[in-house]
Amino acid sequence: MDDNAAFFQRLEALRGSVDRRLAELAPRPGSAPDRLVEAVRYAVLSPGKRFRPMLVLLTASQFGAAETLALDTACAFEMVHAASLILDDLPSMDNAGLRRGLPTIHRAYDEATAILAGVGLLNLAYATVAADEGLPGPLRAEIAGRIAASVGFSGLIAGQARDLFDRDQLRDLPAIDRLNHEKTGVLIMAAAQAGARIASAPAPAVEAVGEFGWRMGLAFQIRDDLIDAEGSVEAAGKDVGQDASMTTAVSLLGLAGARAVMEGHLTAGRAALDQVGGCELVARYVERLFVGRKAAA
Amino acid sequence: MDDNAAFFQRLEALRGSVDRRLAELAPRPGSAPDRLVEAVRYAVLSPGKRFRPMLVLLTASQFGAAETLALDTACAFEMVHAASLILDDLPSMDNAGLRRGLPTIHRAYDEATAILAGVGLLNLAYATVAADEGLPGPLRAEIAGRIAASVGFSGLIAGQARDLFDRDQLRDLPAIDRLNHEKTGVLIMAAAQAGARIASAPAPAVEAVGEFGWRMGLAFQIRDDLIDAEGSVEAAGKDVGQDASMTTAVSLLGLAGARAVMEGHLTAGRAALDQVGGCELVARYVERLFVGRKAAA
Repeated sequence: MDDNAAFFQRLEALRGSVDRRLAELAPRPGSAPDRLVEAVRYAVLSPGKRFRPMLVLLTASQFGAAETLALDTACAFEMVHAASLILDDLPSMDNAGLRRGLPTIHRAYDEATAILAGVGLLNLAYATVAADEGLPGPLRAEIAGRIAASVGFSGLIAGQARDLFDRDQLRDLPAIDRLNHEKTGVLIMAAAQAGARIASAPAPAVEAVGEFGWRMGLAFQIRDDLIDAEGSVEAAGKDVGQDASMTTAVSLLGLAGARAVMEGHLTAGRAALDQVGGCELVARYVERLFVGRKAAA
Repeated sequence: MDDNAAFFQRLEALRGSVDRRLAELAPRPGSAPDRLVEAVRYAVLSPGKRFRPMLVLLTASQFGAAETLALDTACAFEMVHAASLILDDLPSMDNAGLRRGLPTIHRAYDEATAILAGVGLLNLAYATVAADEGLPGPLRAEIAGRIAASVGFSGLIAGQARDLFDRDQLRDLPAIDRLNHEKTGVLIMAAAQAGARIASAPAPAVEAVGEFGWRMGLAFQIRDDLIDAEGSVEAAGKDVGQDASMTTAVSLLGLAGARAVMEGHLTAGRAALDQVGGCELVARYVERLFVGRKAAA
């Protein structure tokens, strides 16, 4: 088996372990009202790249921790991500019909179920971190704090509010970068840093993987904008062409300009990782996601 | 000053400290999009009894901890409560127009803002607990876990889903008790137990204040049902008469029967506290809430 095939096999094995653990951590039939349990499982177990959990696992592994030690934290990040997708897609928000190639939760079920499933998944992320007996108590509290910071009023929630209400203030690249960071980057940063912390990585290394995550978040958002501008529903697995009236990196800079900025973030992120050293697999994994046409996260 | 006046003054001082700390912990203007910050502050700072935080503080105090040590945990419980009110009131849930005598958040602002404010407040509760430097890390993780268990798929979220979707299964008092416990009791239990744990109370005492909280939760819900059946909007500060078509303790047992069950919970809860000893103030505080006509929580 060549090196690429071995790497791919390892990634698939890790992704499989995330999926199996998510299925265990998600509420079981009978443990709560059926409709809610079904909706939650549909939302968090539907096929996905598991990018954030993979980043937790690979980062932990690169700094020397056993991947099993980081598995519950990895799943917690996927729960947060799934929750944010459910809530962003709601009729009162982006009113999206399609997600990961499937009907969104409020279409497949109903709006109340979607809201409860989203809030329940966010909450389950904290329950999972708090109950993770493999990690010392102070580290559990720290990881909960990192998640909370990335979700809250300077993270996903602020970004979604800004996206909904302050669109007219999006006039230049720094404003778009801030929005993209809040909507995507903070959680990716937190995932990479949580993995590093689980492996007791030194502070400068945690800092560096944070910069890597931050850059990747910005690059992913530009990539999403590129897909939206160029792509088909089939390739994206979600509604496209939604951003036609919105200011994005693509509308400001054009396709080629936006692609150049994206490449700049990828290069700078890679440079941050190279400073630390020993993060080859993380870099290689993330770079793979930028090859091909599919949405990355 | 007689004993009652001194007690009342102490309660007011504690409530004031909760309100001041909540105002500090809530997002500040400029830290996130204005509309969201305003809505969150409107939701969590509007006048209320602060029942759950008071229970945290008084329980901590009764078991020998300084109240200041429990203040951030107390505020976290109020944030969770405020979040649950916002979400329960949404158009797709109870579609309520009035709460604490004021327009509900989705009426005062809009639905998307209400959802983001609710999710943001739940998240802020975890951020607050995780960042509470007065408490050792393992205890922060434990309290986060207790909150998560009371919010999640066997707590508030399950209760709300059951209330919305499984109303036809509410045929007897045990089913109603389970619903009431999920919707109210679990969080009150967790608040009392968190206070006890902050004061390093021994396990049987934590157990006993848990039973007290559980009983109080059931009693409060029956009290709410009584107010809904008998009351006026003015006295309740929220929409009343909403439950006319629903099965409640009142519709099953009549006013007098429901009141007797409520009294039974109050007596049994008090007995649980008396077993521990030294919880006079907690018992006295909670009993005060059942005097007079106003909604308790």
